[in-house]
Amino acid sequence: MSNKMWGGRFGEGPDAIMEEINVSIDVDRHLYAQDIAASKAHAAMLAAQGIITKNDAKNIAGGLDTILSEIDKGSFSFKRALEDIHMNVESRLSELIGPAAGRLHTARSRNDQVATDFRLYVRDTIDEMDAALAGFQRALVERALEHAGTVMPGFTHLQTAQPVTFGHHLLAYVEMAARDRGRFADARQRLNESPLGAAALAGTSFPIDRTATAKALGFDRPMANSLDAVSDRDFVLETLSAAAIAAVHLSRFAEEIVIWTSPLVGLVRLSDKFTTGSSIMPQKRNPDAAELVRAKTGRVIGALTALLIVMKGLPLAYQKDMQEDKQGAMEAFGALSLAVRAMTGMVMDIVPDEARMKLAAGEGYATATDLADWLVRTLKMPFRDAHHVTGRIVAKASKDGVALHELALKDMQAIEPRITAEVMGVLAVESSVKSRTSYGGTAPKNVLAQAKAWLKRLEKERKLGSA
Amino acid sequence: MSNKMWGGRFGEGPDAIMEEINVSIDVDRHLYAQDIAASKAHAAMLAAQGIITKNDAKNIAGGLDTILSEIDKGSFSFKRALEDIHMNVESRLSELIGPAAGRLHTARSRNDQVATDFRLYVRDTIDEMDAALAGFQRALVERALEHAGTVMPGFTHLQTAQPVTFGHHLLAYVEMAARDRGRFADARQRLNESPLGAAALAGTSFPIDRTATAKALGFDRPMANSLDAVSDRDFVLETLSAAAIAAVHLSRFAEEIVIWTSPLVGLVRLSDKFTTGSSIMPQKRNPDAAELVRAKTGRVIGALTALLIVMKGLPLAYQKDMQEDKQGAMEAFGALSLAVRAMTGMVMDIVPDEARMKLAAGEGYATATDLADWLVRTLKMPFRDAHHVTGRIVAKASKDGVALHELALKDMQAIEPRITAEVMGVLAVESSVKSRTSYGGTAPKNVLAQAKAWLKRLEKERKLGSA
Amino acid sequence: MSNKMWGGRFGEGPDAIMEEINVSIDVDRHLYAQDIAASKAHAAMLAAQGIITKNDAKNIAGGLDTILSEIDKGSFSFKRALEDIHMNVESRLSELIGPAAGRLHTARSRNDQVATDFRLYVRDTIDEMDAALAGFQRALVERALEHAGTVMPGFTHLQTAQPVTFGHHLLAYVEMAARDRGRFADARQRLNESPLGAAALAGTSFPIDRTATAKALGFDRPMANSLDAVSDRDFVLETLSAAAIAAVHLSRFAEEIVIWTSPLVGLVRLSDKFTTGSSIMPQKRNPDAAELVRAKTGRVIGALTALLIVMKGLPLAYQKDMQEDKQGAMEAFGALSLAVRAMTGMVMDIVPDEARMKLAAGEGYATATDLADWLVRTLKMPFRDAHHVTGRIVAKASKDGVALHELALKDMQAIEPRITAEVMGVLAVESSVKSRTSYGGTAPKNVLAQAKAWLKRLEKERKLGSA
Amino acid sequence: MSNKMWGGRFGEGPDAIMEEINVSIDVDRHLYAQDIAASKAHAAMLAAQGIITKNDAKNIAGGLDTILSEIDKGSFSFKRALEDIHMNVESRLSELIGPAAGRLHTARSRNDQVATDFRLYVRDTIDEMDAALAGFQRALVERALEHAGTVMPGFTHLQTAQPVTFGHHLLAYVEMAARDRGRFADARQRLNESPLGAAALAGTSFPIDRTATAKALGFDRPMANSLDAVSDRDFVLETLSAAAIAAVHLSRFAEEIVIWTSPLVGLVRLSDKFTTGSSIMPQKRNPDAAELVRAKTGRVIGALTALLIVMKGLPLAYQKDMQEDKQGAMEAFGALSLAVRAMTGMVMDIVPDEARMKLAAGEGYATATDLADWLVRTLKMPFRDAHHVTGRIVAKASKDGVALHELALKDMQAIEPRITAEVMGVLAVESSVKSRTSYGGTAPKNVLAQAKAWLKRLEKERKLGSA
Repeated sequence: MSNKMWGGRFGEGPDAIMEEINVSIDVDRHLYAQDIAASKAHAAMLAAQGIITKNDAKNIAGGLDTILSEIDKGSFSFKRALEDIHMNVESRLSELIGPAAGRLHTARSRNDQVATDFRLYVRDTIDEMDAALAGFQRALVERALEHAGTVMPGFTHLQTAQPVTFGHHLLAYVEMAARDRGRFADARQRLNESPLGAAALAGTSFPIDRTATAKALGFDRPMANSLDAVSDRDFVLETLSAAAIAAVHLSRFAEEIVIWTSPLVGLVRLSDKFTTGSSIMPQKRNPDAAELVRAKTGRVIGALTALLIVMKGLPLAYQKDMQEDKQGAMEAFGALSLAVRAMTGMVMDIVPDEARMKLAAGEGYATATDLADWLVRTLKMPFRDAHHVTGRIVAKASKDGVALHELALKDMQAIEPRITAEVMGVLAVESSVKSRTSYGGTAPKNVLAQAKAWLKRLEKERKLGSA
Repeated sequence: MSNKMWGGRFGEGPDAIMEEINVSIDVDRHLYAQDIAASKAHAAMLAAQGIITKNDAKNIAGGLDTILSEIDKGSFSFKRALEDIHMNVESRLSELIGPAAGRLHTARSRNDQVATDFRLYVRDTIDEMDAALAGFQRALVERALEHAGTVMPGFTHLQTAQPVTFGHHLLAYVEMAARDRGRFADARQRLNESPLGAAALAGTSFPIDRTATAKALGFDRPMANSLDAVSDRDFVLETLSAAAIAAVHLSRFAEEIVIWTSPLVGLVRLSDKFTTGSSIMPQKRNPDAAELVRAKTGRVIGALTALLIVMKGLPLAYQKDMQEDKQGAMEAFGALSLAVRAMTGMVMDIVPDEARMKLAAGEGYATATDLADWLVRTLKMPFRDAHHVTGRIVAKASKDGVALHELALKDMQAIEPRITAEVMGVLAVESSVKSRTSYGGTAPKNVLAQAKAWLKRLEKERKLGSA
Repeated sequence: MSNKMWGGRFGEGPDAIMEEINVSIDVDRHLYAQDIAASKAHAAMLAAQGIITKNDAKNIAGGLDTILSEIDKGSFSFKRALEDIHMNVESRLSELIGPAAGRLHTARSRNDQVATDFRLYVRDTIDEMDAALAGFQRALVERALEHAGTVMPGFTHLQTAQPVTFGHHLLAYVEMAARDRGRFADARQRLNESPLGAAALAGTSFPIDRTATAKALGFDRPMANSLDAVSDRDFVLETLSAAAIAAVHLSRFAEEIVIWTSPLVGLVRLSDKFTTGSSIMPQKRNPDAAELVRAKTGRVIGALTALLIVMKGLPLAYQKDMQEDKQGAMEAFGALSLAVRAMTGMVMDIVPDEARMKLAAGEGYATATDLADWLVRTLKMPFRDAHHVTGRIVAKASKDGVALHELALKDMQAIEPRITAEVMGVLAVESSVKSRTSYGGTAPKNVLAQAKAWLKRLEKERKLGSA
Repeated sequence: MSNKMWGGRFGEGPDAIMEEINVSIDVDRHLYAQDIAASKAHAAMLAAQGIITKNDAKNIAGGLDTILSEIDKGSFSFKRALEDIHMNVESRLSELIGPAAGRLHTARSRNDQVATDFRLYVRDTIDEMDAALAGFQRALVERALEHAGTVMPGFTHLQTAQPVTFGHHLLAYVEMAARDRGRFADARQRLNESPLGAAALAGTSFPIDRTATAKALGFDRPMANSLDAVSDRDFVLETLSAAAIAAVHLSRFAEEIVIWTSPLVGLVRLSDKFTTGSSIMPQKRNPDAAELVRAKTGRVIGALTALLIVMKGLPLAYQKDMQEDKQGAMEAFGALSLAVRAMTGMVMDIVPDEARMKLAAGEGYATATDLADWLVRTLKMPFRDAHHVTGRIVAKASKDGVALHELALKDMQAIEPRITAEVMGVLAVESSVKSRTSYGGTAPKNVLAQAKAWLKRLEKERKLGSA
């Protein structure tokens, strides 16, 4: 059977395999709300410009509302033979209102139509992502306030480096999420131009008003070049890039949770809400959600890579390859959304073992830098020399199997005679964190101030309705 | 509600978001046939080893057969609360046969179970892929036989380089597909070891017979290290690598079809079976299937990248991240399968425009190399000198706006006096292709011989049932 | 030999293979200017805050200037044993000014130092990329002005779709480059915060002034969280994302040039400046530069993928993995820069074959949409009906082997009796492009207006010195 | 200046940017040995076939030997103006032996030449990789023999799951490396066909003997299709795929080393040979080599992705894009080679903390499965019921804060009255690992047998010279 929309000239229908590879309705049905909104805006504009009658426009709008409600209710029957969401909607419109349905496709093409639909969809996705990330930030900030003074080991190379506070660590993710939100916001602003009215690729000779449809759909303006309008998928690529970077951030936190909940490490604990058991080892508390967040990152990066590959080397204007822009992107956005919400849940659920954290922070000579800094500050040693002296003192302590603050003063003085008892004041983990008062440093008062500032900012946003 | 399989110790059930991220039944339900086959093999072995009674084994086998038939018929009700295919099957088995169902999971774990299921699934996929690629080869060989002598332009840099035959061009893809099949076959051989019986990660104290279950499931042998058995996803990665390379091959042919069917090029034509129309430009004959094959390549590469990322840096043994191995791989295999079949259809459908091909082969001084070679052969000029002389003759012809064989002998002799009229014999496209008789060269008799040899080989395979 | 910077405590030196994998000086030597600038800012601030003496600061600054000049002149001897650029500079500084050199590393760490250096480097790269892209836009706009009315075939699916103008096509790439510049600008703004003073990970107890060093290095402000400051590589990832999308745009144009210069297509010609010959086929004019631009895209995407993978799942704060952020990124930025400049050269070099373009634009019934639109506009047919009627008329013309405007009026009337001779006015390619006056459409007057607006905008930018 | 090799017809030389993007000598100079070997084989064949004189062949061979020695000694001057390795060698040959040099390029092209060179290079790389992986296996097996009975915690989800032995864990990587070697071997076999003699794309009319050159270069046979011979880069893609999977394996071990050497975990220790210090925290022992191995994985995957992208959608035959096949691949092979050697060094260097391992293995109720299995075996409970009972017993122990073997028998009997004192025999970690005697299980005697079998196999290989 030849396609009733474009098959006018075709003698034979497509091969079965052709139909199978060509059909997109399983994926683009998710665009139904956007497709109908864009058609309504287009029809209203056509009538306002005198291209179709007001009566036709009214019938079209009514029919489209009916279809929207049918799909929402689940009573709409999608047909694979009609290939895509546009044809499914138009065909049903034709059943509902007769020949006037045929006037809707005046001065547009599936090329600008699908570009419009998917932009609207991605824009909605960005808004959801922003809200989810704001929620993630709020959860982090609340826990940071609670733990502004909770001392934990700060790691580099997964080796204990210097004591930090748990609140400070949580706020690092607030910063990352802020950049993520910034990237999504920039992507949103750049995508917010309307391709509608670019028609197939060259514009149209009908006296359409692209500014009107742009405005009706919440776009800032129409896109300036019709070839670009139907060929561009930057808006998906850029949003996927932002998603990939955000996913990488989540994967880092997820990795930390997996390590920290490992029984050998034991810095934090997740409740039953975010752990699962084993089918064979009844004692396990597996941090599955964290592991899955980490894994989803691979999927999101894969989706970005895939679409960059699809778009690479495509001549202008529309190529059928571009139909492959949706499924991977939708799955990736879904995966990220799930991951953000799961991480938010874990942030709220997590319970640090404060005693264990403090003990661990003190292990491994984590205040060695404090000692070196003391030598610089008090004895005016060049830092490099102080660093070497500290290294020798740590080696002595390590050889004796004692912590730095447990090493006898005379043992230190054997290495550097000018050291005085005053040095002991900088070797405890609490004094270490308290001393890190440089801007952005881990001192509890800094963390508290940062957390409060964030809370205020997030509250203000919430009131403004932006999140 | 706490999970009834592993929830014995858990006070609280999982969070809603945890359930959402954790559930895998939407994906791993596709493994039902493999899961049931593996369970049957396991139960039979447990009975043979005296670990469960023969009666229990019989009931288990009967119950599993019932479940298989329920799923085949579509009457089985998958439950998301039961997370995955293993639990769905076991839970139903328990309804069907009571407590004996609980004996099936003796001496195994979901870790070795899912590894076994997915190996079987990927093995089946490889077999299907091999058959599809063999079909692709057959189609290519048949067309190559038909067009062993059809002259067309051979391109490098998409510039006309030397005349070749269409049959020769098609056989290049037969070679690529042969390597693809080789890669899939190697992957199949490497994956064909059984993880079943590795249990959670350490093996088991039950006196199981892993060789028996391996044999029953068509594996060559059990895997040698239980930690490796449950941690390994090489079999998916290697199969995806083979798929990605195969997809790249198809994308190259697809690109050629898109270019060759472009009206400005017009070397070949596809029928209505493999083209579509436009919603707005009624005259279009879009090679959608070729474009989609090209695009699917991006998806396959993306899936490979994604899984490499998921697996990177995972400590042994099973990590939940590995649950993300299935969806992307299944989609990629589906995409490749569709692409191979679509390309096979296009190969059978394609009609070369022989007159246009021959004309194009002669354009652009494509036999210049033949002239250079004649100078070397006949005048004993070093090739580099012959190459320069030819360049000057081509420049003269190009300036005069004539083809090489249309240039007057005296004009050639003005550049190289020793040239004789004999040279004209090598300047026609037919003589050019006929002269390329070196092994693997484009001479029609070579092409015919190669095509026949391939046909024989493919027929032999078919008879042996290997494809 | 144990490392003199951090080896205080180490009994043994590293293994040879350890040294080989660990050394980064071959790559990070490219950061020397940034490293020295950051050290100078740091030293000046230390003195201003009274942490080191003004005299030490002066000596340090003098020594650093000497080193900068040595490296610029090529007389500096980089030592692999000193691992990285920071140690090479500090070690030389020590030779030049003695112990005071050891005071430079007060209140900082290699972790915040390298983060600062690479931010400065990427910021410089962005500025160069912006200038290169502005140059690309100017070249495109100038050629678009020249060819605002040059009719060419507009393609979808590489099939002739509707006539467009060459200028309009070029302006599509101006839009893409504008978005690319927007993405780079956003990345620049987001990266423009200073990590300096975050020290190893926790901040410092020295009374440093991070705002002062930020300002001295042209940053907008210091980063707010020290853990984030040393762990973040978003600035590379985001810049690579922008680069990957920009490279995809270039690859699309490159693909068009490869196809358009193919002798069978012949829409444009490149001069000898941007083509190469063959070692064996003297007549070839290979568009190597375009092919290489297309290929570089793969390298850029690969670099983005690689760094996303490197960063995925890394616990805070600094991990040595992050050392792998530079080489791939530098190569990718270099590849993109080369690609932009090569494309700019080709845009200036390219000569369209206007006669061939116009002929090709008229082939393939490219004005069928104009006919359909005429039926809608004049006969008030619903578009879908007009589309079917047009399809039948095209089929008739195609069967008779004539162009649309060559088909007899009576043949059209046999299909739709209401068609009048007036229809002939819309079937020529010039009238087609002239009629596409909708905003963003291909009408020459639109193209001219857009090109002039762009030229003005680019000129204004140039005067403002932003490009 | 116009290129002297292919510039015969060109009026103008290339643009500066064209030269910059086009030149490949910086990368393909690494192919010099392969290029010269292939040229020698080609010249000898040309003489044997009477296409050039024996004297010319002798002079060519002598000149090439001189060049090889010049390059080996570092006295050869590579010229960027000569673009690539082929032209650099041929040009120097011309200086050395005069016009006869011009006869070398008879019946070949740069297209088959570079394909031959790079195949030989990749083949050499595979051989080196195989030797490196064999060395890695030997190191693992030797340490496994040493630690066949060293009990450590086996992890799933990074949670303690069941006790395993350290030797068993090491042998898992021997299995992975064996599959890696298998993949490289398969890639080697598939690549080992000679493209030489395919000439530009169509074969040649000279009576060459491709079997002779294939044999001289160690290839199994000539490739069967000349178009395929010059277009194929499967051999790089497949080798990169094998490399990517191997790198993923190394990254998993690297991750384990990073975690295990973390002071909070402390299962193993690396010596100073494989750790580095911090510039500011003197006590740190950073596992840099392991982190860099983990990171290099990203680079290798990125290189694979990049080349798949480069090759996607390229029409036959040679396209200049294919020049981008070398740099990324060479860097990736170098990165993997470094990573394998670094991991081998770490395997030999690593010292497990046996006491800590054993303690950790016993924590977290790791023998719960042993209890469940005992209930199945002794009380004939269905596994599912045993699993639930075990869960309740673990919950009781956990509530009381005692280990499983510390729980009073009566507390167990309160949950399951049939439990007897015999159960205590299965709750110790040593009895647990000893009981896992199923094939591939972790029982020390299994591990010992596997390690010995591997040692024998590796020794045999070594004697055969295959590794």
